[in-house]
Amino acid sequence: MCHRLLDGILDFFFEYETPRMVTVRNKHIGIIFRFIQLAVLMYIIGWVFLHEKGYQSTDSIISSVSVKMKGVATGNVSGLGQRVWDVADYTFPSQGSDSFVIMTNYIVTAGQREMVCKQHSSSGTCKSDRDCFAGQHQRNGQGIMTGKCIDENGQNTCEIFGWCPAENDTIIPEPPLLLAAENFTMFIKNSITFTRFRVSRRNLVESVTGEDLQNCIHHHLQKPLCPIFRLGDIVSAIKQDFPSLARKGGMIGMVIDWSCNLDLPDTHCLPTYTFHNLHGDLDQISTGFNFRYARYYREDGIEKRDLYKVFGIRFDIMVQGKAGKFNLLQTTVAIGSGIGVFGLATVVCDLVLLNFLPKRDYYKQKKFKNAETKPQISESKD
Amino acid sequence: MCHRLLDGILDFFFEYETPRMVTVRNKHIGIIFRFIQLAVLMYIIGWVFLHEKGYQSTDSIISSVSVKMKGVATGNVSGLGQRVWDVADYTFPSQGSDSFVIMTNYIVTAGQREMVCKQHSSSGTCKSDRDCFAGQHQRNGQGIMTGKCIDENGQNTCEIFGWCPAENDTIIPEPPLLLAAENFTMFIKNSITFTRFRVSRRNLVESVTGEDLQNCIHHHLQKPLCPIFRLGDIVSAIKQDFPSLARKGGMIGMVIDWSCNLDLPDTHCLPTYTFHNLHGDLDQISTGFNFRYARYYREDGIEKRDLYKVFGIRFDIMVQGKAGKFNLLQTTVAIGSGIGVFGLATVVCDLVLLNFLPKRDYYKQKKFKNAETKPQISESKD
Amino acid sequence: MCHRLLDGILDFFFEYETPRMVTVRNKHIGIIFRFIQLAVLMYIIGWVFLHEKGYQSTDSIISSVSVKMKGVATGNVSGLGQRVWDVADYTFPSQGSDSFVIMTNYIVTAGQREMVCKQHSSSGTCKSDRDCFAGQHQRNGQGIMTGKCIDENGQNTCEIFGWCPAENDTIIPEPPLLLAAENFTMFIKNSITFTRFRVSRRNLVESVTGEDLQNCIHHHLQKPLCPIFRLGDIVSAIKQDFPSLARKGGMIGMVIDWSCNLDLPDTHCLPTYTFHNLHGDLDQISTGFNFRYARYYREDGIEKRDLYKVFGIRFDIMVQGKAGKFNLLQTTVAIGSGIGVFGLATVVCDLVLLNFLPKRDYYKQKKFKNAETKPQISESKD
Repeated sequence: MCHRLLDGILDFFFEYETPRMVTVRNKHIGIIFRFIQLAVLMYIIGWVFLHEKGYQSTDSIISSVSVKMKGVATGNVSGLGQRVWDVADYTFPSQGSDSFVIMTNYIVTAGQREMVCKQHSSSGTCKSDRDCFAGQHQRNGQGIMTGKCIDENGQNTCEIFGWCPAENDTIIPEPPLLLAAENFTMFIKNSITFTRFRVSRRNLVESVTGEDLQNCIHHHLQKPLCPIFRLGDIVSAIKQDFPSLARKGGMIGMVIDWSCNLDLPDTHCLPTYTFHNLHGDLDQISTGFNFRYARYYREDGIEKRDLYKVFGIRFDIMVQGKAGKFNLLQTTVAIGSGIGVFGLATVVCDLVLLNFLPKRDYYKQKKFKNAETKPQISESKD
Repeated sequence: MCHRLLDGILDFFFEYETPRMVTVRNKHIGIIFRFIQLAVLMYIIGWVFLHEKGYQSTDSIISSVSVKMKGVATGNVSGLGQRVWDVADYTFPSQGSDSFVIMTNYIVTAGQREMVCKQHSSSGTCKSDRDCFAGQHQRNGQGIMTGKCIDENGQNTCEIFGWCPAENDTIIPEPPLLLAAENFTMFIKNSITFTRFRVSRRNLVESVTGEDLQNCIHHHLQKPLCPIFRLGDIVSAIKQDFPSLARKGGMIGMVIDWSCNLDLPDTHCLPTYTFHNLHGDLDQISTGFNFRYARYYREDGIEKRDLYKVFGIRFDIMVQGKAGKFNLLQTTVAIGSGIGVFGLATVVCDLVLLNFLPKRDYYKQKKFKNAETKPQISESKD
Repeated sequence: MCHRLLDGILDFFFEYETPRMVTVRNKHIGIIFRFIQLAVLMYIIGWVFLHEKGYQSTDSIISSVSVKMKGVATGNVSGLGQRVWDVADYTFPSQGSDSFVIMTNYIVTAGQREMVCKQHSSSGTCKSDRDCFAGQHQRNGQGIMTGKCIDENGQNTCEIFGWCPAENDTIIPEPPLLLAAENFTMFIKNSITFTRFRVSRRNLVESVTGEDLQNCIHHHLQKPLCPIFRLGDIVSAIKQDFPSLARKGGMIGMVIDWSCNLDLPDTHCLPTYTFHNLHGDLDQISTGFNFRYARYYREDGIEKRDLYKVFGIRFDIMVQGKAGKFNLLQTTVAIGSGIGVFGLATVVCDLVLLNFLPKRDYYKQKKFKNAETKPQISESKD
């Protein structure tokens, strides 16, 4: 009894079952069959293995970006005389994170303090005091309405309690005050880590020397690895005109892509830089980029502020990328799944063979055998 | 010889091999078989093709968000009289990136300068000078201890060198100073690009006109595309009470979702906006959101600062989404993989057929044939 | 006629087709066959089900991070006497988002105003006026050149119009001014939501009490859930020396990982914290982290600023994670795909059986049957 069980187990382990096949010699079906098989094979080799590198396990990226601007701009501001702007003046936020703004133009309203005054006319007009609801503010209002409608230079506006004098932002300086920003340079430092593979890289790769950092300017063909970018070049790359972009501001996306094949030495793991226009076309509504910020100070014991409406280029730096490294498990799975797709050939060919060929009934008899020998169906000896 | 080789190659190319099958007429097994096949087919058509759009290749999103607040608040602050806050005062950071804070309440400690003074009692008490270690600071300390324990109004605290007078943050203003923030509006501009498909979209889609931007307020049913949000509406959407949230601050996540089917015209690619409570419930420990910031100024040649403990609503805007577009390769792979899953039906049915049916031995004989004719097993002629 | 059609349909539905197999009793091929099947089974159970949890549907995370620093530093700054720095002074930006800088050292240039002066010598020297192009700025220039080359203390530099006096950043304070930052603590609040599963969690999990938040310090073994981190501990964790990192600044990545199995109770969904050095090694070019920022003020009606070159530790907090929950569809697909991979065993064994075994011709005869009985090939009765 035990002997028989052992035999059964041995039978199971030393036995191999393979499907019995019918070989059909037919040019049409053969060509379809081999063509589909070839297509699947090309897909597995060409796409899964070579293009998608299906034999590699992958790792995602963690990254940190810091930015340092260089450049100085000067110009005359009406009422303020000649001014100069350096990196601490035109970078927001100053610490240079992966989303930042370079000021290219601005409207300053100096010496504001909290008091009662008229609004600027563009913020909404009134006909009489009844249009001005005390204690509320208009949608584009510059302060809290006192309830009075006041007339100045033929333009009636609601009187407000707010930061006075109210800002007048109807005239945007032309040419932009910091037109020289075209020559500003942006030094981007990007450190990445593939945590699973324990590989860390910086965009200051081996071929970038200390001397390069003093002299080089990024060029997508001649200097693709130089991490110092001229603002004017970036704006050209997204096919925009610098003066008009600088005047009303805009948004630019920068993608740093690290697609690394870690089966090669780490030094082959290099970044690529691309730029994308993210502010829409100038003929669309609500284009440009601007924001308001205030510098507070105290004069004669009274808190005052200089209000800046800043127009600028907002940069969003996005780091993408993944690393791949040979992995036996991954390779086996890629092969195994590929073999599964081979079944497609049999399915398609059987469909043709058993339904569209003239000899389809003959092939059916060869392929199928009834388990039950039913008398009403004459069965070919098989 | 060469002729035979050619014959062999032609044989290979014009030959098609298809498995020989046994047809079993059995209601139970037939129903199981067809039911599983139907389920797989429904899964492939319904889930893989219709729901997951397996026939499309996908692209991830790059995006840029900018935010512009509108609204003015006013109120009386004890010791400072009536104050007014506009966008430059209550937005942090002022440039309006995808993570920002709207101030809704604050505690101000005006005119601090670096000198020696007592701490506020909540920062830790002392009994004698021995409790105050000169040169160190307590965990919640407001400055560097001088080593003296001083008594004031019956509360002993360690004397410190620090910004004096020390902040007293025990009493949080109630109602919140900027309760009017409920009516502030938030204009969100979001530009996205699907880089691989070269499609760029803005959340100011075609149906949003310039006039809309002057008047509309987002409503998730009536105005789902209006990009202007009222703060009070957002807080309602996450089922919170504005005054209590405004008093101690909170965190709100906003998800802009772009799931685009680019087989349709681009104009069908629209954003949806959802809000999520990210600050926990008010009965949990350490709720709310606050931070300290300082406005520095110089008075009589001495550097001073006004310290603000700001309570506010922190918004994190997250842009998600992917685009899909018909792709022949992707379609073939989806079909091929689906056919692989059909094999499941055969595996399950064979299991039943060969192990659980009464006629299982009969079916085994029909299905299997031994390559070696072993005398000890009587084999049915097949 | 209709009867026959019905019969055909019934036939189709009550019929099951299973491939006919040849059973080969051969130790070698049997062992290969069962070994591959075992490997596939182990892969499906061990990897797909247990490791990757293929039976679960997954959800991605949305998250919000806020940071609060605690700690005070003091020290003597040459020319300014004893100074004290608290949280509002050393945190950039003050609102504590997921990317922030802790100042550890700085160079201050006090009382700058816009005027004409000499540059600092490190910014580029000149030999005569011809080296100084009026209206332009040098790559490392500190202002707009006036066209004059001026001599001071034997160092010729181009005269500039800019913020004067020009910054001298050649000597970085040693030891760093805020060396006490080693004892600063960082309280990290992280709220996450798995939107599809409607699960929200905070890093202040159930086992973290209000008392813990007063006393605990994170330790990766003893206090892995305490959300309060000592700066010195973090720097040790990435194997760096605090004083040298603090002097020139650096970048540290913090990963909060939420990998949650929501088949268990939510309370098992816990964060893990890891730190990564993102600023490279100190022997590389352009290490460290610094930026310039300015505090503006008005003295005697003139706008002035104090320029700070801030060296600090930049933290980037990245939240990763996904949740899994049992899903019937997902489970079925995982099993189905696994069965597809079983086909690998047959393909490999057929390859061996029909090409490498001595009895390969015999097995071929057993496995294949020609549909056409071709006279030139003698066919075994099958």
